[in-house]
Amino acid sequence: MGKLEETIAGVGPLDSAAMAAAKARQDTLTKPLGALGRLEELSIKVAGITGQALPRAFEHPTVIVMAGDHGITADGVSLYPAEVTPQMVYNFLNGGAGINVLARHVGAKVVVVDVGVAAELAPHPGLVNRKVAPGTANFAVQPAMTPAQARQALEAGIEVAEGEIAAGADILATGDMGIGNTTPSSAIVAAITGEPVAGVTGRGTGLDDAQLHHKIAVIEAALRLHQPDADDAMDVLCKVGGLEIGGLAGVILAGAAHRVPIVVDGFISGAAALIAAGLCPAVKPYLIAAHLSVEHGHRAVMRHLGLVPLLDLNMRLGEGTGAALAISIVSASVKVLREMATFGEAGVSEAAETAADEADSRVK
Amino acid sequence: MGKLEETIAGVGPLDSAAMAAAKARQDTLTKPLGALGRLEELSIKVAGITGQALPRAFEHPTVIVMAGDHGITADGVSLYPAEVTPQMVYNFLNGGAGINVLARHVGAKVVVVDVGVAAELAPHPGLVNRKVAPGTANFAVQPAMTPAQARQALEAGIEVAEGEIAAGADILATGDMGIGNTTPSSAIVAAITGEPVAGVTGRGTGLDDAQLHHKIAVIEAALRLHQPDADDAMDVLCKVGGLEIGGLAGVILAGAAHRVPIVVDGFISGAAALIAAGLCPAVKPYLIAAHLSVEHGHRAVMRHLGLVPLLDLNMRLGEGTGAALAISIVSASVKVLREMATFGEAGVSEAAETAADEADSRVK
Repeated sequence: MGKLEETIAGVGPLDSAAMAAAKARQDTLTKPLGALGRLEELSIKVAGITGQALPRAFEHPTVIVMAGDHGITADGVSLYPAEVTPQMVYNFLNGGAGINVLARHVGAKVVVVDVGVAAELAPHPGLVNRKVAPGTANFAVQPAMTPAQARQALEAGIEVAEGEIAAGADILATGDMGIGNTTPSSAIVAAITGEPVAGVTGRGTGLDDAQLHHKIAVIEAALRLHQPDADDAMDVLCKVGGLEIGGLAGVILAGAAHRVPIVVDGFISGAAALIAAGLCPAVKPYLIAAHLSVEHGHRAVMRHLGLVPLLDLNMRLGEGTGAALAISIVSASVKVLREMATFGEAGVSEAAETAADEADSRVK
Repeated sequence: MGKLEETIAGVGPLDSAAMAAAKARQDTLTKPLGALGRLEELSIKVAGITGQALPRAFEHPTVIVMAGDHGITADGVSLYPAEVTPQMVYNFLNGGAGINVLARHVGAKVVVVDVGVAAELAPHPGLVNRKVAPGTANFAVQPAMTPAQARQALEAGIEVAEGEIAAGADILATGDMGIGNTTPSSAIVAAITGEPVAGVTGRGTGLDDAQLHHKIAVIEAALRLHQPDADDAMDVLCKVGGLEIGGLAGVILAGAAHRVPIVVDGFISGAAALIAAGLCPAVKPYLIAAHLSVEHGHRAVMRHLGLVPLLDLNMRLGEGTGAALAISIVSASVKVLREMATFGEAGVSEAAETAADEADSRVK
């Protein structure tokens, strides 16, 4: 059994006893029942994921940003030249990108991984080199990657995540960098959800109408050419995927196998989550959807995974920027559960126990 | 001219030069144009509010929680007894309430103000005593407060906020505590927006159907009795308002007059914002709507003020809990503007300048 199969086999169900205990505690805290809404639900989910009835506050949030290039950019699907991928990797390493700012804001570490950048990157203490290939092949004409490359990308993600977890990471967030990567993401979403390509393909970094129609046509033609099997996530990843997308799917699998909550960023991370859930449906309950991306295909991803994003701030940057903001919300949810006083501790009267009786006596 | 009139006269327009400069800088940062969505817009709004083209990062976020009681609770509009208001004030002072946890999470100070609690509160270094009256009168039978009391409540809010601003507060958030206070809030919202009472009245801490119908009937009867003038916010506040709501309206006016961003919590704070905007329409651009409350009347507040909430987490606790979470988002927006590298600084290539030409050459 390889690393991939081992990891998939290691993903178990959420801990229902921990969830029941967390729910019971929420109901004793000094607030009307359910008044903190999704914060309460999140804290219960974290209890189930971690197996801790009273989850520890997160001390080492970690954003794993996977970078890769895409052969499909030769077909003019992005406004930016592919050279921007390595340029942005250096920007990450220098701390000047959006993800750096937002990760610092929430106290998260950023780990930058080269899974498939089409350039030789200068070594840097902050850069993890797990390059599988210098970009994918152009999937307009051939499969994006071989099965061996897909496995390497997935296992790179698993191993990087496991290394971070071993070093203390207690909540993981996914991020991506790869010029052109909304194109493979839309292809993956269309292939797996069965939605029409036009319904899941957006403007990426800012395509105009003609460019968008071209991008849709490129994806439709590729799906006709390759006929990826919706029920075989590995087949989809090989034929129309991306190396960083495979890497992120690996991060997700490893997080779930190690009972670490995974905050899934936007559209590209969502495509990776579809791949991970295709390989291992048991990962779904471990996922926390950070935000709703402007890329409208993201809605189909959320529907398919049964997730409701925490934030909707009209963002479409990727890099893990939405996930970084969401880490703060998840962290807040755990603190609510840990730190709020109970009615008993605070000496606060509870609501009328028999609301109906109370109403009867009052509404006369 | 009294404190109230002085403050209202001090509210000027946003600084459009600072906003233009902030927008220009956003467009040079290493991300596709507009890719950080509402974070970009927020940073520009903060520039306009503060008059700083590159706003300073917030160092002293301050949540002002105004507490007051409501004579209308005699009519059975809440599941909780009025004694919970002082109990919760002590919970705030002991750091055990939801707002304490979330304010600590975002590094904000909590200021607790007694504007109208119907109990003698023990002195505490963290408690600001600005009690106008021990609760409002029951507005089912008489006006909630006199015009003099309404002015006192507003000026208490102004003075507390000014004290905090003088002590360094650079972003203010509003919070409330007052058993029964969704009832005056719904009355205010109906009176000012003209929406039907049933359309802006919710279950508060958890009323059942019969209790909700009773609450609606109580508010409808009060509005028929008092006939508050929609165009006279002071009249509305006196007849069906709350002392903590008046206090919060004062906080909002003071924030705007001193060019400090004001993060407005949920439904009760929204009612206070309607009063503030009624007294001084120029405050509207200074408001940042934190979250969409479960109390469905909050949508009418947002429509009337032309605001779109940052968060929608199914919350309905009040206390400033939604505002505390939103402070972190506003703070992140300023850091993005301040800390992200520009394309030039990072040596990152920009998008094709003439997108249409580019498309012409590529889509062939």
